[in-house]
Amino acid sequence: MDFARSPEVEALIGRVSAFMDEHVLPLEERLMTEDFTALEPALAEARAACRAAGLASAPLPRELGGMGLSLLEFAHMSEQLGRSPLGHYVFNVQAPDIGNMELLHQFGTPAQHERWLAPLVRGEIRSCFSMTEPELAGSNPVRMATTAVRDGDDYVIDGHKWFTSSADGAAFAVVMAVTNPEAASPYARASQIIVPMDTPGVRIVRNVPVMGHAGSGWLSHAEMTYEGVRVPRENLLGGEGAGFALAQERLGPGRIHHCMRWIGIAERALDLTCARAIARELAPGRTLADQQVFQHALAESRAAIDASRLMVLEAAWRIDRLGQKAARESISTIKFFVAGMLQQVLDRGIQAHGALGMTDDTLLSFWYRHERAARIYDGPDEVHKGVVARQILARHGHSGARR
Amino acid sequence: MDFARSPEVEALIGRVSAFMDEHVLPLEERLMTEDFTALEPALAEARAACRAAGLASAPLPRELGGMGLSLLEFAHMSEQLGRSPLGHYVFNVQAPDIGNMELLHQFGTPAQHERWLAPLVRGEIRSCFSMTEPELAGSNPVRMATTAVRDGDDYVIDGHKWFTSSADGAAFAVVMAVTNPEAASPYARASQIIVPMDTPGVRIVRNVPVMGHAGSGWLSHAEMTYEGVRVPRENLLGGEGAGFALAQERLGPGRIHHCMRWIGIAERALDLTCARAIARELAPGRTLADQQVFQHALAESRAAIDASRLMVLEAAWRIDRLGQKAARESISTIKFFVAGMLQQVLDRGIQAHGALGMTDDTLLSFWYRHERAARIYDGPDEVHKGVVARQILARHGHSGARR
Amino acid sequence: MDFARSPEVEALIGRVSAFMDEHVLPLEERLMTEDFTALEPALAEARAACRAAGLASAPLPRELGGMGLSLLEFAHMSEQLGRSPLGHYVFNVQAPDIGNMELLHQFGTPAQHERWLAPLVRGEIRSCFSMTEPELAGSNPVRMATTAVRDGDDYVIDGHKWFTSSADGAAFAVVMAVTNPEAASPYARASQIIVPMDTPGVRIVRNVPVMGHAGSGWLSHAEMTYEGVRVPRENLLGGEGAGFALAQERLGPGRIHHCMRWIGIAERALDLTCARAIARELAPGRTLADQQVFQHALAESRAAIDASRLMVLEAAWRIDRLGQKAARESISTIKFFVAGMLQQVLDRGIQAHGALGMTDDTLLSFWYRHERAARIYDGPDEVHKGVVARQILARHGHSGARR
Amino acid sequence: MDFARSPEVEALIGRVSAFMDEHVLPLEERLMTEDFTALEPALAEARAACRAAGLASAPLPRELGGMGLSLLEFAHMSEQLGRSPLGHYVFNVQAPDIGNMELLHQFGTPAQHERWLAPLVRGEIRSCFSMTEPELAGSNPVRMATTAVRDGDDYVIDGHKWFTSSADGAAFAVVMAVTNPEAASPYARASQIIVPMDTPGVRIVRNVPVMGHAGSGWLSHAEMTYEGVRVPRENLLGGEGAGFALAQERLGPGRIHHCMRWIGIAERALDLTCARAIARELAPGRTLADQQVFQHALAESRAAIDASRLMVLEAAWRIDRLGQKAARESISTIKFFVAGMLQQVLDRGIQAHGALGMTDDTLLSFWYRHERAARIYDGPDEVHKGVVARQILARHGHSGARR
Repeated sequence: MDFARSPEVEALIGRVSAFMDEHVLPLEERLMTEDFTALEPALAEARAACRAAGLASAPLPRELGGMGLSLLEFAHMSEQLGRSPLGHYVFNVQAPDIGNMELLHQFGTPAQHERWLAPLVRGEIRSCFSMTEPELAGSNPVRMATTAVRDGDDYVIDGHKWFTSSADGAAFAVVMAVTNPEAASPYARASQIIVPMDTPGVRIVRNVPVMGHAGSGWLSHAEMTYEGVRVPRENLLGGEGAGFALAQERLGPGRIHHCMRWIGIAERALDLTCARAIARELAPGRTLADQQVFQHALAESRAAIDASRLMVLEAAWRIDRLGQKAARESISTIKFFVAGMLQQVLDRGIQAHGALGMTDDTLLSFWYRHERAARIYDGPDEVHKGVVARQILARHGHSGARR
Repeated sequence: MDFARSPEVEALIGRVSAFMDEHVLPLEERLMTEDFTALEPALAEARAACRAAGLASAPLPRELGGMGLSLLEFAHMSEQLGRSPLGHYVFNVQAPDIGNMELLHQFGTPAQHERWLAPLVRGEIRSCFSMTEPELAGSNPVRMATTAVRDGDDYVIDGHKWFTSSADGAAFAVVMAVTNPEAASPYARASQIIVPMDTPGVRIVRNVPVMGHAGSGWLSHAEMTYEGVRVPRENLLGGEGAGFALAQERLGPGRIHHCMRWIGIAERALDLTCARAIARELAPGRTLADQQVFQHALAESRAAIDASRLMVLEAAWRIDRLGQKAARESISTIKFFVAGMLQQVLDRGIQAHGALGMTDDTLLSFWYRHERAARIYDGPDEVHKGVVARQILARHGHSGARR
Repeated sequence: MDFARSPEVEALIGRVSAFMDEHVLPLEERLMTEDFTALEPALAEARAACRAAGLASAPLPRELGGMGLSLLEFAHMSEQLGRSPLGHYVFNVQAPDIGNMELLHQFGTPAQHERWLAPLVRGEIRSCFSMTEPELAGSNPVRMATTAVRDGDDYVIDGHKWFTSSADGAAFAVVMAVTNPEAASPYARASQIIVPMDTPGVRIVRNVPVMGHAGSGWLSHAEMTYEGVRVPRENLLGGEGAGFALAQERLGPGRIHHCMRWIGIAERALDLTCARAIARELAPGRTLADQQVFQHALAESRAAIDASRLMVLEAAWRIDRLGQKAARESISTIKFFVAGMLQQVLDRGIQAHGALGMTDDTLLSFWYRHERAARIYDGPDEVHKGVVARQILARHGHSGARR
Repeated sequence: MDFARSPEVEALIGRVSAFMDEHVLPLEERLMTEDFTALEPALAEARAACRAAGLASAPLPRELGGMGLSLLEFAHMSEQLGRSPLGHYVFNVQAPDIGNMELLHQFGTPAQHERWLAPLVRGEIRSCFSMTEPELAGSNPVRMATTAVRDGDDYVIDGHKWFTSSADGAAFAVVMAVTNPEAASPYARASQIIVPMDTPGVRIVRNVPVMGHAGSGWLSHAEMTYEGVRVPRENLLGGEGAGFALAQERLGPGRIHHCMRWIGIAERALDLTCARAIARELAPGRTLADQQVFQHALAESRAAIDASRLMVLEAAWRIDRLGQKAARESISTIKFFVAGMLQQVLDRGIQAHGALGMTDDTLLSFWYRHERAARIYDGPDEVHKGVVARQILARHGHSGARR
């Protein structure tokens, strides 16, 4: 066992960190007070600088314009990017695009690569992933009411989705829809289909107001309807009925990305908290940083962050070496563990900031609101704990009565 | 010991609850999507109806236009009002006005009663309370930089405040300022002074953006400067140097009001959560309400709410019978206990709602954001736990080395 | 609502507390180092003194030799007794005897009263309650393998029990056994039967070693076998098939007794902890009591104990006024809430004592071990949370898919 | 970063695990019911077999009779041994002997090696470490009342100690005593001195009863007095005034050993818990293992154990590579994190076992009692959290007002 980071990773972290300080952090204040679309010109500049520096789209192969990083290497990078709410976006590795890039790269046809993947990797377009439905629990993905019916050489899609993040301004959506309702396995009924957003019948009903804001552009979550949306068969991604299998492929690395991003958030929150505590005088010569209760919470946060990082890196390493299936328990473990850590670190940060922590004068209140979703999206805590438990029990010979 | 509610309280709760259903709850949806000031006409109507029904300004004496309720009686009422974010406002018992009314009623001169108290009780004007300062920890109120210097028959006030809630649109502020910097006790240095908002030198710098919104009108928290603000001596409230003593008088019942309001929120959140869980099908014939983990969290919430209510009612009863000083430990205990309960119940509610819980389609996300402050304002958890501990230890003979 | 204790209750608490100080607390040190049976002579003296003082068997009617206390009154008393592990025993209100006395009093025949109840109330004999079976989860009491078969005018009992507390030295057992295996409702299959311990076929296999000790006498938990145990029909308690109904009757007040006893333990633990913290110097002039982390934990313990007491007293008041059925949710709520509080208060007490907390030089380690069972016996947390949740959900119209 | 275990470590784990199954686990049942000294003959056989298999005294160099393992390698082994309360003892790596061996090895003179170290490594004698004093908080080790006064070529030691674990039957004690009371630094006042247990004036007052048992032999914790105990100067270990420096050296690896041992306990507890849950039928066809609440707790335990292991292994790796000083924060982090994990896993295990969990029919109740001390010895949680916090804050430029 060797816990040392390679010299390459160390160098990468240095470069990324310097770029973040120069190009990304200065934009944060505007994010807190302006609409996302108002920032887009400044962000576009930063994205161009990032591409020029050779730091964009990192997990994609070099030949496509990425950096060809392994999942473990990118995990380290993702932590650095996570220190700012704008990091992943500037480096063109933001969800949901990065997931779509990985999907297209692995399972797309050459034509799909050329038409959708290439401009995504170059950062010229954005995309979205349209899976969750308002009427059915997202935690049970085999239940899906959206259908895609074969009609000649086309699919005709009808359905109602929401939390299609970043649909606002996207060039295309990857839509999950039932194509094979009669398949024996409920996991073999849905497919993923590429739907250009300008296809007739595609409608953004609204950007769902989330924690007080409807948001805009990349920072939004759309409610959408698909009514008689007709796309050609070649827009199918990876085979009919393969929708869930692909979604799983997409979600494994995606959870590593998220978890490392959350660790970056937590580290930044801890930095902000320490700085605040040291500066916040409670009585002459005595600061919040001297308070024992603050200190103990700080130590507990530190422990939880360190634990989280090691677990996520190990899961990434496991996926790199053994594949996603072998890492399934690890992935579910980190999903709920790191999300829980994040919520607690942010909460402690707000408490340490006092009234200031409630304001938009710090990043904490932004993350407090938006990252509450960490325990919900990509599988809520409840689902992941169940997955882990059933794997453990199966190793002990338990068959499982029912879910 | 008799845990039964009196027939009068039962009847009161019935009337209040019916009024809430008819006049208040229908306005909630607009609160989630519109600016507060846009709601004001509709709210004014509801407030008029409330006054007409004889339900307004309840803790104030009947001769002033209130209902003359004891603190225990009002506590029961406050829970009902708390079920909606608009309840207290419609019933004209909203912070900070209710605290100012109680202050003026107890300590104001006849002239102050006529000029400020009467229109407040009638709901014709609003007010604010200007204490917290951005540079100094609000948890240590003896540290205050704002000064009020005597100049002839006037005070001249200079200072910088924030979290002066509801300053936007208020007719006057009660300002805490140091008048007696040389007083031996740090608790005898500040005074409370009534400052009409249109006095020259009074400036609202901004409504501080809190959890993503600057807000407006009653639902806002101002950063303010006072520069050479001149008011006549008769605007002094309750004696020079009495500022802290009055603030303590104001905060005792205020914490009862808040705590019962939080219990109302928690009950409403629990209702929403149960309704959602029963409706949310996870698999055919199996809803979230059938999940054991959900059920156990529900039971824990129920226990914590029940515990909270009994403790708050007992504290109110204690204040009614023995006065605030005798209830100091109880008041500090409920402040942190109920605030903690509220945060947990809301958090569980969001988790049970899944993605919906993140949206402004439910009240939960509103409370999740705004009531995070419950553990901070009117003394953070840390301060109240210290108060309780020192009282316990003093009973065991401990003198206390230092704070 | 009136939270004041009546003058009668105040006077009672005073008398009980004085008796405890004089007669019970001096015996505690021996309990930590000697076998229970070695203490019995000294305990017998204390019990005689208690009876002479008119304080024994308090919940039983005066005409039987008790004090005729209501459940609410006895709850107050039970807290005082709980301050010592020997309190309930000396006052002849110890489990399982008090439960058996209440059962016999409510449901026994005159002959049973004379033969079994009278000497129990006088403290001349002890008894036990034989329900739990090692092979079947005690949390699901309808599953029971012990049978009592009618044979002429007798029942013949066969079965295997454990955690028959205090069987060692008891004069009789109340045995739960299936008499009506064919009854439609699983709740109507078992009966309670009085079995003299000297009946042939009754065997104490062992006192089960619990937390390191097999114990002896009243302080023990037997594994028992019943093989062809023949008792006359008149030993049936309260009707054939009524076993569960009676058990429920027995458990309601029993849980009030336990919960108030736990509150007494918690109060004593808090006293010990405060005394220790004040005395434990960490550095010159600085004691553990001055540590902020200690203080906050103390405040949290205080809040949890206060909450517990109010909830238990309210549940007792509810049973007194409305009967057990109406208090079912309250009883389940306090069972898990108070047991959880107790465990946490004891754990904090041990931590504050440091190495001393691990030793038998304090009562804390005794309670830490033995009261871990509080979250298990008389229904584990899991069962009671489920009960509470299903009651809440039923009020919201939920039918419940399955347990 | 490479999370793979080396083939050597894999092979070692295999051998150790097989030995445990064959020689150690069969002895456990007797441990639960018999005095430790009664087991000594059987344990002596197992220890001889272990030595014969070349698996004893593993962290010591091969030339002394150990295996020459690095700390990281031994950490892996320690987890395996921890699965049984007897593992470390049988492999002759039990505290306090292993710490004394490491001390003697690093700092002992050739004469001390020959007289004390060699027979310890060969498992022929036992030893103890006499530091903690009953009157002074062990959490502040610079406070020490025991003195060692130079008198000619001797030291004369006077003092009162307790929690001198395993003194009963030991051949010698390493005693911490103040030799240089005038030293400027409080950390330079004490020395470590080897004291044969048969020296006049050495007295075991009692084996302190801990959690219900005084214990015996290796499994005991003595209260001791040293009255005019005279030992020659050459019994000084590592230099006058070096006592604390040596204690720190001793405690670093010692905490790794403990933490990995606790992980072994937790893994075993989890295995027992899973087996029990699968076997424990709650209703026909439905076991405890199917309960969602059980499953979620299981997943949380799994996550906490996995996190613990990674953190401890990384700390061991850090010590191996960079030395103890560089690992100070890591060591303090794991000390409180892993001890907290252990307590929770054991508590959940007991709850899952129900009444059985309270009995000595499982190992859980043994560990529940004895490992409550994990959060206290070798520095309580409170001290380690303070260490971690101050290191973090120092990196942020905080000087620290006071402890």
